Amino acid sequence: MSGMQEAQKPAAWRSRLHRIIFESDSPSGKGFDVALIVAIFVSIVVVMLESVKSLSDSHATLLRLAEWGFTALFTIEYVLRLLCVSKPLRYARSFFGIVDLLAILPTYISLLVPGTQALLVIRTLRILRIFRVLKLVKHVRAAENLMQALRGSRRKIEVFLYAVFSLVVIFGSMMYLIEGPENGFTSIPKGIYWAVVTMTTVGYGDLSPQSPLGQTVASVIMILGYGIIAVPTGIVSAEMALLKPVSKPGAVSGQACPACGGGAHALDAAFCRLCGSKM
Amino acid sequence: MSGMQEAQKPAAWRSRLHRIIFESDSPSGKGFDVALIVAIFVSIVVVMLESVKSLSDSHATLLRLAEWGFTALFTIEYVLRLLCVSKPLRYARSFFGIVDLLAILPTYISLLVPGTQALLVIRTLRILRIFRVLKLVKHVRAAENLMQALRGSRRKIEVFLYAVFSLVVIFGSMMYLIEGPENGFTSIPKGIYWAVVTMTTVGYGDLSPQSPLGQTVASVIMILGYGIIAVPTGIVSAEMALLKPVSKPGAVSGQACPACGGGAHALDAAFCRLCGSKM
Amino acid sequence: MSGMQEAQKPAAWRSRLHRIIFESDSPSGKGFDVALIVAIFVSIVVVMLESVKSLSDSHATLLRLAEWGFTALFTIEYVLRLLCVSKPLRYARSFFGIVDLLAILPTYISLLVPGTQALLVIRTLRILRIFRVLKLVKHVRAAENLMQALRGSRRKIEVFLYAVFSLVVIFGSMMYLIEGPENGFTSIPKGIYWAVVTMTTVGYGDLSPQSPLGQTVASVIMILGYGIIAVPTGIVSAEMALLKPVSKPGAVSGQACPACGGGAHALDAAFCRLCGSKM
Amino acid sequence: MSGMQEAQKPAAWRSRLHRIIFESDSPSGKGFDVALIVAIFVSIVVVMLESVKSLSDSHATLLRLAEWGFTALFTIEYVLRLLCVSKPLRYARSFFGIVDLLAILPTYISLLVPGTQALLVIRTLRILRIFRVLKLVKHVRAAENLMQALRGSRRKIEVFLYAVFSLVVIFGSMMYLIEGPENGFTSIPKGIYWAVVTMTTVGYGDLSPQSPLGQTVASVIMILGYGIIAVPTGIVSAEMALLKPVSKPGAVSGQACPACGGGAHALDAAFCRLCGSKM
Repeated sequence: MSGMQEAQKPAAWRSRLHRIIFESDSPSGKGFDVALIVAIFVSIVVVMLESVKSLSDSHATLLRLAEWGFTALFTIEYVLRLLCVSKPLRYARSFFGIVDLLAILPTYISLLVPGTQALLVIRTLRILRIFRVLKLVKHVRAAENLMQALRGSRRKIEVFLYAVFSLVVIFGSMMYLIEGPENGFTSIPKGIYWAVVTMTTVGYGDLSPQSPLGQTVASVIMILGYGIIAVPTGIVSAEMALLKPVSKPGAVSGQACPACGGGAHALDAAFCRLCGSKM
Repeated sequence: MSGMQEAQKPAAWRSRLHRIIFESDSPSGKGFDVALIVAIFVSIVVVMLESVKSLSDSHATLLRLAEWGFTALFTIEYVLRLLCVSKPLRYARSFFGIVDLLAILPTYISLLVPGTQALLVIRTLRILRIFRVLKLVKHVRAAENLMQALRGSRRKIEVFLYAVFSLVVIFGSMMYLIEGPENGFTSIPKGIYWAVVTMTTVGYGDLSPQSPLGQTVASVIMILGYGIIAVPTGIVSAEMALLKPVSKPGAVSGQACPACGGGAHALDAAFCRLCGSKM
Repeated sequence: MSGMQEAQKPAAWRSRLHRIIFESDSPSGKGFDVALIVAIFVSIVVVMLESVKSLSDSHATLLRLAEWGFTALFTIEYVLRLLCVSKPLRYARSFFGIVDLLAILPTYISLLVPGTQALLVIRTLRILRIFRVLKLVKHVRAAENLMQALRGSRRKIEVFLYAVFSLVVIFGSMMYLIEGPENGFTSIPKGIYWAVVTMTTVGYGDLSPQSPLGQTVASVIMILGYGIIAVPTGIVSAEMALLKPVSKPGAVSGQACPACGGGAHALDAAFCRLCGSKM
Repeated sequence: MSGMQEAQKPAAWRSRLHRIIFESDSPSGKGFDVALIVAIFVSIVVVMLESVKSLSDSHATLLRLAEWGFTALFTIEYVLRLLCVSKPLRYARSFFGIVDLLAILPTYISLLVPGTQALLVIRTLRILRIFRVLKLVKHVRAAENLMQALRGSRRKIEVFLYAVFSLVVIFGSMMYLIEGPENGFTSIPKGIYWAVVTMTTVGYGDLSPQSPLGQTVASVIMILGYGIIAVPTGIVSAEMALLKPVSKPGAVSGQACPACGGGAHALDAAFCRLCGSKM
């Protein structure tokens, strides 16, 4: 922290703004995070309610007002974020930069181009902005642990997915042969859809085998699907058990890079691991 | 035990009552526990049967009689509990104190205030009283092990829940766009409800995708939901594998604090860990 | 084996019969096992087909003949088993003794007492007799490993089941309140049935929440149920990981006790661990 | 690699063809693999679309053309594979040899023998050919790890399956007795089908218990099924945790045997582990 104070390269207001918007270890930074998380949730609830016909009819003005309020708010926030990082383009092209933009763009487009109401649904992507606020050291560490376990078992999960995919195609085709169009299995893709619904144990019941042979084969598929779920679980469990609890030096700070806004830096990091700027 | 006998501060009848009602290592204490567990179960069965229209019509008097009998019984028990602890207020505000009160309150309120029949359903919370009787050393230790594993993996589970929540919102909105109101996806909240039903592999079938594109996207969501279940399982498994079998000195006695009634004390505990009273 | 040859206490034919019927390490013993397993499977298929109305009408005589054939066969086998053990009563009261008797009794009773057709369904318990033949050393060891892991985690599973039971009762009552009889939740037991169907992710769809509030609460219950499945899995996984691979001296022989017919003895066992007879 | 160049026993074109078709460590080999994987996927999509009535009517010629194109392509590939291995019969009888043949045979048969349209569904087995291309070292190692874990836990899984099978038969018969034909449980096999649908938590809802007793028993079965899933998961997890990460010397090369076409050889292999030919 003190190192940043000394290397006061960016204008004072910019570095202060950066601490408030991007970081979470000052009281004002925490306050901003809480306000942001509330705004995100309420704005998503507004988007949801807008899609309920009866509500959007009776409270049209209120909902529209709220929507424009949030869009204005998020636009200001987006501009401020652009202003306070020293490499705005890098931020704009980062994952969160794009999510931040997608949170405001649809509302503007729907105003300019009529008939693009469907685009408004994209605003639910705002939910992803919540992860931006998850800057708490413990959460970041937990997320990293999870990602590490998933990355470690990636190849095994890929092989598993290939196997499931093949089984689903083969069983789906088989059931199309056995049950046929008269029982709702009108095509191979429909059979495959049924196989996915069955093997994942979802079981809607919109399609279900009617013939004795079909029900017998379906029973085998179900037990297989039920047993197969053990495989990815076993993979992830084993990988997780291998993980060493992240040691202290590897811990993560609540700071973000002043240049590109990237977070989750090691406590002793002197340079941003993403853009190389001095921190 | 002998230490308590010597420090005979509370009146003799109070300390004896305390041993019977709150503790389980004397024969009369065990007898009380068994009687209580039977009473709880039967009273819950009565509440259930009362809600079955045909039965509540044909056996109205019997069910009402039984209900009042149990309420009287639990009221007496509640008063006795208040009497035999030395800090009654502390007991009354503890988790089990509130559950004990909720077990009797609805019946009285429904008598005084008409039209509060709905409150009667609260009486099913009596089920929680069973945990009061689970004072067996081995059960308490197992429960502690479970809680410890869940606590240890709390952050990871939180991150996982955030991720599931985001996926459900995004997929729910997507299906609202793809399927639309004509296939039952009348609003985004409805789409999200469908996404929860699908990702958790519950699959009621009250809503299911009808269009080929919708069924394709749904297949992806199902396989994702099926695979994602591996993550919390992996987390808890790994955490459980780390647990050391609780060593003897950490074992738990069947005694309860004479002051506040709190249980699950270490075998060598001389003072209550909850209120600090001498045991 | 040679020790048994020397201690030729039981009549020669009895000990030879015992080796054939109860044990699996001689060629004739293995042949008997294979024949038995085939007979069990075919007899169960016969019981099943008999319950299919169209088949039991068209092939009545054939099915009845087959049934009486198997009953005769299993009766002879039961008598032989009684004859060749030295403590017949002990065998008759053992788990497998009772299963062996239940395999033949219903057919005789249905002949003597008319109107007891329902009893015939009990004959499907014959399926349990398959475990009698699972005398292969490796299978027995695997089964013991499984049982050991389940036994080791018994307390934790009990606590888990209490918790699930409480959740199901509370959520079931809650949904009865929220949805009410007009949406099919006609009573608290019905609500609890729904809660079980939902928390276990079975999701028939015969009952499903209709009101927005009900669907919201249901979503929470589903995610909870989905997450909670991690707990028993974690318990069993952790317990299994602790298991030492059963060492050679603990291995199990294919022999059975000549006195009571109990199996799964250690390779170096000189006396039956169940009845103490010399082997 | 250089060893193979020296021992230039097979004709130069054959060894070059072999490297392209069977191996993946040269640029042309990689290109062939990518082309093959695309061809497989597109051909399966064609088979699927052909089964959709509306599409097969409107685009009959296009789909037929595409199908014959792929059949020609795969036939050429099959012949080339036969040509470039030195033991063609061995290749033809290997798993992938049969799959390669099944990918082309149905189309020819449907031409020769009319009325064998059903055979065309067999072409979806082409999906299995994808595994042929999964020659990447990391994938092969992951697949081997998975297989090893499953093989290691085979006996336990067998015992588990016997137990599930018995439970399903017993519960299915029980529900046939309790619910009876008037609620859709028309026979024991139907009851068993319901028990499988329920225990695996698939829950179509085409059959569901209607009587209070049936719903109570069903609840028990569901909770059992829900808990039982922990067992195979625990088995596989524990087995996976035991696996040593495959050490470097055990790694697998992208080469295939020039004689039989078998893959997944150790990096230091001088002879094929399947047919003993020099590599």
